[in-house]
Amino acid sequence: MIQPDSAPRSVRQAPDTVADLGEFGLIAAIQAELPPGDLAIVGAGDDAAVVRAADGRVVASTDLLIEGRHFRRDWSSASDIGVKAAAQNLADIAAMGAFPTALLFGLAIPGDLATAWVLELTRGMVAECGRAEAFIAGGDISSADSIMLAMTALGDLTGARPVTRAGARPGDVIAVSGPVGRSAAGLALLQAGVMSPAGTGPRDLADLVAAHLRPQPDYSAGPLAATAGATAMIDISDGLVQDLGHIAVASGVGIDIQTAKLPGIEVLTTAATMLGTDRLAWALTGGEDHALAAAFPERQAVPATWTVIGKARGGDGIFLDSARWTGAGGWDHFRKPGSMQAG
Amino acid sequence: MIQPDSAPRSVRQAPDTVADLGEFGLIAAIQAELPPGDLAIVGAGDDAAVVRAADGRVVASTDLLIEGRHFRRDWSSASDIGVKAAAQNLADIAAMGAFPTALLFGLAIPGDLATAWVLELTRGMVAECGRAEAFIAGGDISSADSIMLAMTALGDLTGARPVTRAGARPGDVIAVSGPVGRSAAGLALLQAGVMSPAGTGPRDLADLVAAHLRPQPDYSAGPLAATAGATAMIDISDGLVQDLGHIAVASGVGIDIQTAKLPGIEVLTTAATMLGTDRLAWALTGGEDHALAAAFPERQAVPATWTVIGKARGGDGIFLDSARWTGAGGWDHFRKPGSMQAG
Repeated sequence: MIQPDSAPRSVRQAPDTVADLGEFGLIAAIQAELPPGDLAIVGAGDDAAVVRAADGRVVASTDLLIEGRHFRRDWSSASDIGVKAAAQNLADIAAMGAFPTALLFGLAIPGDLATAWVLELTRGMVAECGRAEAFIAGGDISSADSIMLAMTALGDLTGARPVTRAGARPGDVIAVSGPVGRSAAGLALLQAGVMSPAGTGPRDLADLVAAHLRPQPDYSAGPLAATAGATAMIDISDGLVQDLGHIAVASGVGIDIQTAKLPGIEVLTTAATMLGTDRLAWALTGGEDHALAAAFPERQAVPATWTVIGKARGGDGIFLDSARWTGAGGWDHFRKPGSMQAG
Repeated sequence: MIQPDSAPRSVRQAPDTVADLGEFGLIAAIQAELPPGDLAIVGAGDDAAVVRAADGRVVASTDLLIEGRHFRRDWSSASDIGVKAAAQNLADIAAMGAFPTALLFGLAIPGDLATAWVLELTRGMVAECGRAEAFIAGGDISSADSIMLAMTALGDLTGARPVTRAGARPGDVIAVSGPVGRSAAGLALLQAGVMSPAGTGPRDLADLVAAHLRPQPDYSAGPLAATAGATAMIDISDGLVQDLGHIAVASGVGIDIQTAKLPGIEVLTTAATMLGTDRLAWALTGGEDHALAAAFPERQAVPATWTVIGKARGGDGIFLDSARWTGAGGWDHFRKPGSMQAG
């Protein structure tokens, strides 16, 4: 049962619920939170938005976030949820080598939800769009028994070829644009009750919790990799092994990961020791880091901000330090997360 | 509680549930239903799709459909739901004067749902995209307690200016692209138990039920109106009065509807008599017909397939046969539907 009055970390700026305000009142209140977007020709508030696509192509991706599965209101503020929903969707645009341009959102909410919560969520989406230099082009709201967000991001390739999952060749260098496993570690700390969502406590642990609640992808890493000649690229949303597995299958190659090279694994040590967990499991199968993984034709092509972690090879499959990975890869929404069973 | 085994009119082609298949198995099965789209540069199956937008702009709209609010599985087959979800979203593209090009969908479903149901839903979306000459560019699936669809349609203005809600001027002629009130009448027949979802019974009543379950918008009506010089346009999704009210507010005009001219109202007579309802209420406040309403600078400009129903005037508000409408207009997702209180 939804209890909007008990939602923590939510600034109550209006006493009313979304049912008090009504659909059109709520839409107007949300629109008042949106800055005018310079990419919009016609923005939110009509049947559809018109977004510039000067390239003659548009990149588009869609994502769902469901309360209890992708976020918890006792862990995430409305702003956190807005940031995360926008970030995971905009990162998919970057993973094609494109610049995010616009975001559309669908918001299913119960009528007794506080209007202030919805406006704080909107501000989170607006803030993350600002980081990505995108704007909110439109949305839809509906009543529902629980909260669900549907996000669609659009992007511009600015003349570049899209970088798919299917271009890696044997011999290519595999690199990632940022640390992996931090979101999974943050989630584990919250699940164990070791850390509170407010992030009070040791700074290194608080950073992991923040990485889970409020991911801040480097959107420029995608277009940078495309310009540098990346042959394949993916957003690490389901876990490094699983997502590199997608590149391996789509490209028809094997991929060997050198585990000692995984960036950011040292910051997982304290949390892993505290919880009696293998930090490598977080780095390999933890989802939602929203760093990018890509293949490059040679080491010299890898941008300075990226970290080389392995190599593509002939054959198929994922290898850890030359041993074939036989475990499950990461997160499957209809199954339990895969366990560490490296072979 | 979801009972996939009791879903009527659903062809069970596979005994398995989506949980049996797993997220990636289900994605692969859905992808196998998608025809290759000639507008796709990169289609479903990567982080994002790349869609042609030769115009240099892209039209984008998003919609939510939630089980129990927008559809019922005992009334609608999976195919019906796929058709309706696609149709209502693609109609928003036409309402800007654009041609639909692509559809992205988010699908939240319980793990015990039959895979066959999801594939039938997909076929419904594919069929309606085919009618609109659009293709399915991507999607996301997630487990959830109940079924929710999030649709995002993209479209191409092919060089035309977008027709917003905000361009109508006093003296403009108001017209609609098709009959109104049929979906509301069909819904009332289902709610009263007079008609079954299978539509057996008198043909005129069955047509109303079909209009509710499986709307078939004329997507070409939007670009046609734009070419003809339409000054404002909207998809009639919430009810004629409410949607013309949006044009009136956005354009700063009043709109006078001549009720005798509403197209298709005669086909509502039998159902209205049977249910003791005012057929005009359905035509004025019933939603989901997905005909378009538009303003044209003169009667000669109105395309032959459109029907003139009134005129824009100075001032504000909606008038029925010169009397100001003071009732609620149609459907509000957080309030009850408006009642007939024309004044």
